[in-house]
Amino acid sequence: MRFVKGHGTQNDFVILPDRDGSLDLHASAVAALCDRRAGIGADGVLRVVPVKLSPEAVSIAESAREAGGPTGAEWFMDYRNADGGLSEICGNGLRVFARYLVDAGLAEPGEFDVVTRAGVRRVRLGREGDVTVDMGAPKVLGESRAGLGGAEFDGLVVDVGNPHLACVTGEPVTHLDLSSQPAFDPAVFPHGVNIEFLNAVGERRVVMRVFERGSGETLACGSGAVAAAVAAARLGGDPLGTWAVEVPGGLLTVTLEEHTSLLTGPAVLVASGDIPAAQLT
Amino acid sequence: MRFVKGHGTQNDFVILPDRDGSLDLHASAVAALCDRRAGIGADGVLRVVPVKLSPEAVSIAESAREAGGPTGAEWFMDYRNADGGLSEICGNGLRVFARYLVDAGLAEPGEFDVVTRAGVRRVRLGREGDVTVDMGAPKVLGESRAGLGGAEFDGLVVDVGNPHLACVTGEPVTHLDLSSQPAFDPAVFPHGVNIEFLNAVGERRVVMRVFERGSGETLACGSGAVAAAVAAARLGGDPLGTWAVEVPGGLLTVTLEEHTSLLTGPAVLVASGDIPAAQLT
Repeated sequence: MRFVKGHGTQNDFVILPDRDGSLDLHASAVAALCDRRAGIGADGVLRVVPVKLSPEAVSIAESAREAGGPTGAEWFMDYRNADGGLSEICGNGLRVFARYLVDAGLAEPGEFDVVTRAGVRRVRLGREGDVTVDMGAPKVLGESRAGLGGAEFDGLVVDVGNPHLACVTGEPVTHLDLSSQPAFDPAVFPHGVNIEFLNAVGERRVVMRVFERGSGETLACGSGAVAAAVAAARLGGDPLGTWAVEVPGGLLTVTLEEHTSLLTGPAVLVASGDIPAAQLT
Repeated sequence: MRFVKGHGTQNDFVILPDRDGSLDLHASAVAALCDRRAGIGADGVLRVVPVKLSPEAVSIAESAREAGGPTGAEWFMDYRNADGGLSEICGNGLRVFARYLVDAGLAEPGEFDVVTRAGVRRVRLGREGDVTVDMGAPKVLGESRAGLGGAEFDGLVVDVGNPHLACVTGEPVTHLDLSSQPAFDPAVFPHGVNIEFLNAVGERRVVMRVFERGSGETLACGSGAVAAAVAAARLGGDPLGTWAVEVPGGLLTVTLEEHTSLLTGPAVLVASGDIPAAQLT
């Protein structure tokens, strides 16, 4: 079976082309592929399947159409976590998915829609370079606090499809110890929360670290970058505009528009090849 | 450029075939390939080059011939650490290297010699299954002690081409905290030492964990398994015979013979494919 390995700001994926929708991908096979020593190694798997060949994707696309959304998505991003579980979406993964489609000649450069379990998402990219993903409209829901190492951090509660607490602080985030779960208010976040700590470091530029719900500190979190830009923009007094967000895995750019947000960042295809069938059973 | 990814007891490698000896492999390219998120990811790179096309390998083979050693090695294992530095040998890597040669049709199943920076090594393997590597004669040099978590452990000083301190203990090794360097006697080991902790768990069977010099705890260490078998065999009163050595990465088998030692273990090729040239610059 063919595969491609790629990463977006060091969030890495095994891409499995499945143009005839015939790949029956068991959780154990995903876990074996993602094993960083005994397998290829990745944070997750992106199965590339035509929307029309996936009943799940057809249903998602129909719901989007009924809500007045886009109608022409051809490809479904079937995203699985490294443990084999289904997952809704991953902003970094969607950039890599879009780059693969263009690189493989399955989509033309420009703008097109992709079906994900979080709905239909628009992407924009050229033949090379960064990829932009429409992240939808972030919603500011109030304020809360995070606790870390005996200190408290004021933060903004932002919904970017998933819950975030974005804390702008004067303490250099590079010095924080994020090896364990920061405290948060379970009354505000009954299902947990992704917590961003960020410093303003220049004109519309922030440095961010993130503790992701269920994962711990990660090198980059796309929705977290959007939440961070929202919090920094609010402090700056102008809720719209473009922000540079430095994360440990690289540089992301967030554009806050009136009715949506755009996330731009790198997507790199590292290698391609074949996996013996024995690796998938 | 073509690559193969493989592992032996979860020590993993990117194999780069270089049949015409033309690959100029810079340290930065090795580091990029071994990066576990932005690259393919591995503990090291194994360049596969004909002996006759590598002046370094020709010189090693000639030294072996002059010492009365084997004469027919065709392939040189040019092993690089994940940081890009040259390295002498890796027992797990040599198994994977041999498996690649047979799988690619570059060597016939059976026995053959491979040139490594530690000398010419004989390997034995079939078309499938485990691979046996001749590890040479281990030398017992005396006794010493290791310190860990306030406790002291008696150990045997064994030279397997590199220095080992193999400590048989009654304390379950699964409970040890090997997150930091165990203490050792710098007068005995001026250049550092690989330290094995092991329990006898049955007839000629041990469970081992290892703290490798310069690396910390690893999932498997081939020369460490040989040292562990030597220490356990000495306690058992019979210095020869075959031992099963359970390491965190899998199961190794060590056969102690009168004039040499043999290490047998798995070698699995996980994937093969192409790397864009841009990844290597």
